[in-house]
Amino acid sequence: MRDDLPRGFRVGTAGAGFKKPDRDDLGLILSDRSAALAAMFTQNAFCAAPVLICREILHRHGTARAVLANSGQANACTGTEGLDNCRRTQRMVADGTGISPDEVLPISTGVIGAQLKMDLWTRAMPTLLDSLGSRDAEGFTRAFMTTDAFPKFAMRDVPLLQGSVRLTVMAKGAGMICPNMATMLCVVLTDALVARQAWQDMFGRAVEKTFNRVSVDGDTSTNDTILGLANGASGVTVSQDADLAALESVLTEILGAVAHMLVMDGEGAGKVLHIHVRGALSTADARLAARSVGHSQLVKTAMYGGDANWGRIVTAVGYSGATFDPNDVCLSLCGIERFHNGRPVNDDKEEELAALLKAKDVDIDIVLGPGSGSYDLQASDLGHEYVSLNADYRS
Amino acid sequence: MRDDLPRGFRVGTAGAGFKKPDRDDLGLILSDRSAALAAMFTQNAFCAAPVLICREILHRHGTARAVLANSGQANACTGTEGLDNCRRTQRMVADGTGISPDEVLPISTGVIGAQLKMDLWTRAMPTLLDSLGSRDAEGFTRAFMTTDAFPKFAMRDVPLLQGSVRLTVMAKGAGMICPNMATMLCVVLTDALVARQAWQDMFGRAVEKTFNRVSVDGDTSTNDTILGLANGASGVTVSQDADLAALESVLTEILGAVAHMLVMDGEGAGKVLHIHVRGALSTADARLAARSVGHSQLVKTAMYGGDANWGRIVTAVGYSGATFDPNDVCLSLCGIERFHNGRPVNDDKEEELAALLKAKDVDIDIVLGPGSGSYDLQASDLGHEYVSLNADYRS
Repeated sequence: MRDDLPRGFRVGTAGAGFKKPDRDDLGLILSDRSAALAAMFTQNAFCAAPVLICREILHRHGTARAVLANSGQANACTGTEGLDNCRRTQRMVADGTGISPDEVLPISTGVIGAQLKMDLWTRAMPTLLDSLGSRDAEGFTRAFMTTDAFPKFAMRDVPLLQGSVRLTVMAKGAGMICPNMATMLCVVLTDALVARQAWQDMFGRAVEKTFNRVSVDGDTSTNDTILGLANGASGVTVSQDADLAALESVLTEILGAVAHMLVMDGEGAGKVLHIHVRGALSTADARLAARSVGHSQLVKTAMYGGDANWGRIVTAVGYSGATFDPNDVCLSLCGIERFHNGRPVNDDKEEELAALLKAKDVDIDIVLGPGSGSYDLQASDLGHEYVSLNADYRS
Repeated sequence: MRDDLPRGFRVGTAGAGFKKPDRDDLGLILSDRSAALAAMFTQNAFCAAPVLICREILHRHGTARAVLANSGQANACTGTEGLDNCRRTQRMVADGTGISPDEVLPISTGVIGAQLKMDLWTRAMPTLLDSLGSRDAEGFTRAFMTTDAFPKFAMRDVPLLQGSVRLTVMAKGAGMICPNMATMLCVVLTDALVARQAWQDMFGRAVEKTFNRVSVDGDTSTNDTILGLANGASGVTVSQDADLAALESVLTEILGAVAHMLVMDGEGAGKVLHIHVRGALSTADARLAARSVGHSQLVKTAMYGGDANWGRIVTAVGYSGATFDPNDVCLSLCGIERFHNGRPVNDDKEEELAALLKAKDVDIDIVLGPGSGSYDLQASDLGHEYVSLNADYRS
């Protein structure tokens, strides 16, 4: 077990057998004191029960002591029975730890529509509680993985005026990753002492610049949740502008690093497409163009095949709805210009480009015109592994 | 050769070797008299040169004598050189047939960005002209196929008050099929004598109800074009309301039949998803929900795998942007209700459903609420064949 958690947090996991035996599918984080909560949730009209409950906690008191995560069951589209079950799992943790049920943040992932298997929850709870303090960030991350090929977590120590604080990020999410939100589930822990509003503000900005700018398949799930708990156990108060800026800077960097892991793993993705749109009339136009390219199945399959078929990228820009003059548009693939002011570039660089397209990371640079609007998006490619993983996910 | 063309039209084809040897990749339709033209084009900001020229002909005089089709080269994103080349191909046909260049409608499909190989055009033109009258609808259709697994054409005779007229439809289009437009290329021929405005009006309505309601991968191409030529060679005037209604009815039916072929063949598609949205607040809301489901990679891969994962459908409705109350939503898959008023239906019909999902055609019925807005969409599934076809299309 690695010492990769901020002070004051303990982690436990257990295998309840929700979907598969011989793996942990329950995870619990407990803070030894009340933590300031920041959070962002899915925009999907069908919110899962745990999303509704986390949102209620955020708006009602904005503090929490625990995060309870499970894989194998999403508890989405489950009606009032799903909400009642979710509250029962909160109470189980409260009873076992002495905290209040409404300090427990539930997050779930898995198949939509099935009710929680409460007997399995009841049976696994003692093991989960007993294991508190014996697991690390990787262990927690493994407990809420679904089709993820590898666990996604990262840790940074941030030197500040009064001392050092730690940021630890644990995320899962391969499918259904899309702007608003980028990941199904992500938990950020820090032992910094930071005011709730300042914490939520920097959290929102950091998520917008990172997780909200990655795309795997364009589907936004019913369960997407990102939670940030700041428990202050370091004793280091983050209130001065320089400290707040330093913490936000590292938070943005570490969320960007984890977002890159999500795209890299996007349902069997082989490549990460880094789409950079510049020169748009507005940020909104740049975002339309970037998302259209990042969501295009034809672009994603071409990149999967290492095919320099830039015409598909231009096509996706063309139907994006962004406003621009086609005669101003330029496009580079892996740094090699293929389209200049609305016309193809004819040169002998096809072979060079074919070699560059074999890389894991592919840059797509699009200039729409002389404007100042810009947007960056990371998207996954689309290959056979995606189809295999998703064609029969439930079984 | 089948006698499947309306009176007054002759067809020829030739192999120019644009992309592959030993296949026809040039097609020509010639009418023995001027035909009333109806047409609809891609909404993509990057229109191919042939689209620009067809649009000019439609708006300038609205009549035509010939359709010149090619596969292997899209002549899109090719600037003024592409436009000049396209006009040269019009002149070649005009010189060889005695008609005016601006009576020749060019339509192209293939790789974007490359300039037309004018030497190959010049060399193949005599064979193309010589073959006029020796080919049928299937022959023409085969000349503009790209990744299509089978040629798509259909013929109907329409009994009217003064006699019978014929409708023949020839289409290609597997990839890049999406609402606005549904197919890359489609030509409708009829020997009915119908006023230009009446022809364009019924044509627009029929396309909106058929081709604009199918989706393969959500990409709208630079070249999508649907042309309708009514040359009046039957001598049967279609001007009375009953006749106009009869012609429009059969036109809508035959375009629907060909649109179904397009989805069935959608880049290696195995299934056609028939998405029916009812009870929406407006048609626009119904369309948002239907397109969100029809474009969802997760829904399409689940259907490919025969997986009754209805949660993905509900999820796609949830992020569609349509306005509705989640507690009103109902969903049936293959006629079996899985979601009722926002809650899952728990029964023992999973096995029955699994068997039904093996069919080629899958019905997805969604009720959003008590409203009167509705929308139907045909979408393809997403499987390994799609990835294989599109990962290296250019080579």
